[in-house]
Amino acid sequence: MSKILLDVALIHEPVVNRRGETIGSAVTNLDLHDIARACRTYGVDTYWVVTPFAEQQELASQIIGHWVDGYGKKANPDRGNALSLIRLCSTLDEVIAATRTKWGTEVQVIATCARPQEDTIGYREMQRRLEKQQPALLLFGTAWGLAPEVFTSVDSTLPPVNGSGDYNHLSVRSAASIILDRLVGERV
Amino acid sequence: MSKILLDVALIHEPVVNRRGETIGSAVTNLDLHDIARACRTYGVDTYWVVTPFAEQQELASQIIGHWVDGYGKKANPDRGNALSLIRLCSTLDEVIAATRTKWGTEVQVIATCARPQEDTIGYREMQRRLEKQQPALLLFGTAWGLAPEVFTSVDSTLPPVNGSGDYNHLSVRSAASIILDRLVGERV
Repeated sequence: MSKILLDVALIHEPVVNRRGETIGSAVTNLDLHDIARACRTYGVDTYWVVTPFAEQQELASQIIGHWVDGYGKKANPDRGNALSLIRLCSTLDEVIAATRTKWGTEVQVIATCARPQEDTIGYREMQRRLEKQQPALLLFGTAWGLAPEVFTSVDSTLPPVNGSGDYNHLSVRSAASIILDRLVGERV
Repeated sequence: MSKILLDVALIHEPVVNRRGETIGSAVTNLDLHDIARACRTYGVDTYWVVTPFAEQQELASQIIGHWVDGYGKKANPDRGNALSLIRLCSTLDEVIAATRTKWGTEVQVIATCARPQEDTIGYREMQRRLEKQQPALLLFGTAWGLAPEVFTSVDSTLPPVNGSGDYNHLSVRSAASIILDRLVGERV
């Protein structure tokens, strides 16, 4: 596949907890690492980590700095290569504005969800749009997923990653990896 | 897809470190959780966690017990549902023997690797074998991957998960999720 224009955003606020209440979640180390490594593998341009909490941004910044500029760069340069894709941002609106500026055009904002949503776009259709180099921003929610208000503001939502039954509790790290593979990977 | 006869084994010994030396690695909490959740999603029968170290087995056992029988069962039953797929084992030979006994027949042992190997089997061919209900055991290596001696004893190896470039440093959690999706998932 030729170069794609795809960004990923991991949203920590607004997301829902297990009771469906809107919350802000904490940044976790492996969400940064695993999703950055998948983003680098599949040619994602920027991996946005979205949290409005200054302390959480500071924590993420320290982790990224260790691997991109600090001792980690020497110990495992492949890891810094992946984590250098990360940009920290406070709100989804800021991310959308930044991607529009970067690509100089409108950007399709596509949500993901473990539960079926309205206005879904199939994986193959999304793949075709990426092949046509239409810029896209793919949103993943931490905790129990993106808050309802996010779905009303996006262009489309990808269908849930269904396996072989009705269990749909993948980690966001697994879901992001699988969805990037479905959109960009080539099975051989 | 009808029921598949597929097990997954996560190998902690023998694997290689970044210098290619054969080592035993440590069990990590999120390898248990993320891969168990992916296994449950894709209908895997047993998720074998292989380590010869008694302390590591004890640690894994405590984590699993918390979610399957302890407080975690009440707090998040979906998690226990996934972690209940895990069986601890000391060696790969024990796992192979146990899967043969379970299914009453020979079992294809298929390795995975980020580097190209000989005797590879394509994803589509592997998918066809699973659809024909041929029992299979899929091996994933922790650290820098399975030790060379493992590849000489398996039936085949799946090709590396290639993205859009030459970066091939996915986490084992991501790789296992993607490979299960390629073998069992259905894109819509």
